[in-house]
Amino acid sequence: MKRLSRLASFILVLGWLSIQGAAGQSDPLASWNDGPAKQSIIAFVAAVTHEGGTDYVPPARRIAVFDNDGTLWAEHPIYFQFVFAFDRIKALAPQHPDWKEKQPFKAALEGDHRALAAAGEKGVLDIVAATHAGMTTDDFSRTVGDWLVTARHPRFDRPYDTLVYQPMLELLDYLRANGFKTFIVSGGGVEFMRVFAERAYGIPPEQVVGSSGVTKLQTGPDGKPFLMKEPKVEFIDDGPGKPVAINHFIGRRPIFAFGNSDGDQQMLQWTASCGGVCFMGIVHHTDAEREYAYDRDSPVGRLAKAFDEGRQRGWTIVDMKRDWRTIFP
Amino acid sequence: MKRLSRLASFILVLGWLSIQGAAGQSDPLASWNDGPAKQSIIAFVAAVTHEGGTDYVPPARRIAVFDNDGTLWAEHPIYFQFVFAFDRIKALAPQHPDWKEKQPFKAALEGDHRALAAAGEKGVLDIVAATHAGMTTDDFSRTVGDWLVTARHPRFDRPYDTLVYQPMLELLDYLRANGFKTFIVSGGGVEFMRVFAERAYGIPPEQVVGSSGVTKLQTGPDGKPFLMKEPKVEFIDDGPGKPVAINHFIGRRPIFAFGNSDGDQQMLQWTASCGGVCFMGIVHHTDAEREYAYDRDSPVGRLAKAFDEGRQRGWTIVDMKRDWRTIFP
Repeated sequence: MKRLSRLASFILVLGWLSIQGAAGQSDPLASWNDGPAKQSIIAFVAAVTHEGGTDYVPPARRIAVFDNDGTLWAEHPIYFQFVFAFDRIKALAPQHPDWKEKQPFKAALEGDHRALAAAGEKGVLDIVAATHAGMTTDDFSRTVGDWLVTARHPRFDRPYDTLVYQPMLELLDYLRANGFKTFIVSGGGVEFMRVFAERAYGIPPEQVVGSSGVTKLQTGPDGKPFLMKEPKVEFIDDGPGKPVAINHFIGRRPIFAFGNSDGDQQMLQWTASCGGVCFMGIVHHTDAEREYAYDRDSPVGRLAKAFDEGRQRGWTIVDMKRDWRTIFP
Repeated sequence: MKRLSRLASFILVLGWLSIQGAAGQSDPLASWNDGPAKQSIIAFVAAVTHEGGTDYVPPARRIAVFDNDGTLWAEHPIYFQFVFAFDRIKALAPQHPDWKEKQPFKAALEGDHRALAAAGEKGVLDIVAATHAGMTTDDFSRTVGDWLVTARHPRFDRPYDTLVYQPMLELLDYLRANGFKTFIVSGGGVEFMRVFAERAYGIPPEQVVGSSGVTKLQTGPDGKPFLMKEPKVEFIDDGPGKPVAINHFIGRRPIFAFGNSDGDQQMLQWTASCGGVCFMGIVHHTDAEREYAYDRDSPVGRLAKAFDEGRQRGWTIVDMKRDWRTIFP
């Protein structure tokens, strides 16, 4: 009896060990199909974390930067922050009866994308000023938070902050588990993204870099200070602005960067000159069935120059349809 | 024999445990004399880290911000970054023979502080433009690094980056050991401070916030991108600029702030409205023997308004002479 019981314990322990072993070996990039993209990520991480290896990078220098729109979450049919702005125009319209006849507000209210496009940069700035300024930073964050709870994507009928890419969530976790510090470096508004970046991606506000408007310190009647958002663009974190912002906010060169459009080209080039082994990745949207298929001719997230350079220089190009087992969580 | 050996083991274990216990109880703020300043720090940290307590703050929200000049390192007789600029003017003078007769360069070369003061803000900007621009960000960092190795403080005859305050180093470590993320938020140049902040304070570049100049992305003849420092001020991180920069870079309100001059007043006010238990500290330079004694009438690091407000609102005011056992490491 005692013998059997010991044998039983032994078998139980063996069983437990094998379960632990299996868990230990579970794939941290389970939503990535096996292929060159997944392999290049794993090989890079193995190289820079191998102590004593020639490509070893100490944890403090393991900086990874990610574009947001089209890289971490979807961006079609239009950038989600634009949807937020148009929804705000609709919500604020009763207080602005003149908007019914005034561009670009008329176009925004009527969903007239052609007229909106015709309004150009000036039109975008007018809409940004009307929806992203004239309130405190705290009030703006609350407005974004409320919108995320109620708004739904027109095609997927899900809240926008659930349209994040499962393979990229796994990649963020995988990098962090390997001592990387993960940052967003996006053309999106920094105060817009910070509302959901921590919950959606595990990226805290202080690691979100983005475009910004001017804010001004004021004091309320209660004597408490607050920051007022002014209708003035401060910085556009896109294209050549991305290396500038990386230097300004992070202060060291990333060794890992992921983007998906020509707006990320300079960030990828900047990372490519990291001085050691560097990883440059591009998400290529090739899956019209499960998400969207677009590149050279898309007004949203155009990918042409960065794609050509990436192919020429051997950057990792993710074919969404082929490389991703799952798209959304 | 076996008995004795067991007893010996037992005694050894007891001895080891008591050593561990003593080590565990060693004072993390050993350079702080016992008194209200030290007590207020310990009480605050105990309150916000006590899980289940009414004042508990989760680690992600434990943001601590520190001014640099006069708070983490010395700032007299003049800000160390000014010394760097004047030394650069001297080093560059042979290439600029006209500086001998041209203000503010003439004053900088002759150490004529009166003439320099007379040159005003325009003079400072001319000197900053000549010493902090017209080179790449990488070259600037190298120049600062080289200067730190060779330059010596006129009174203490030590490298400037060793004139950091030992009690503040202990405080930084103590906060980090208690789950805080420590940031510098200083009027000093961000690219200047990042050269030594990690080594001197354990604060990585991405947690250094400061004043900045405009940088521009360019491409070298080798096809590699670099950032050129332009002679244009981008942002002054002082006074009302500090809450603006905290919001811009960190994106959440600190619960702990330390400064030493009126340039920190708005940062302290901003922290004081943190919404829970908040800690506001001011270093008061009272020790002419071991360091310097100055406050209301000092052109460098003037402390008047913030001092009055701090006393009125019960902020922690460190009397350097009384509260600090050691000044420099």
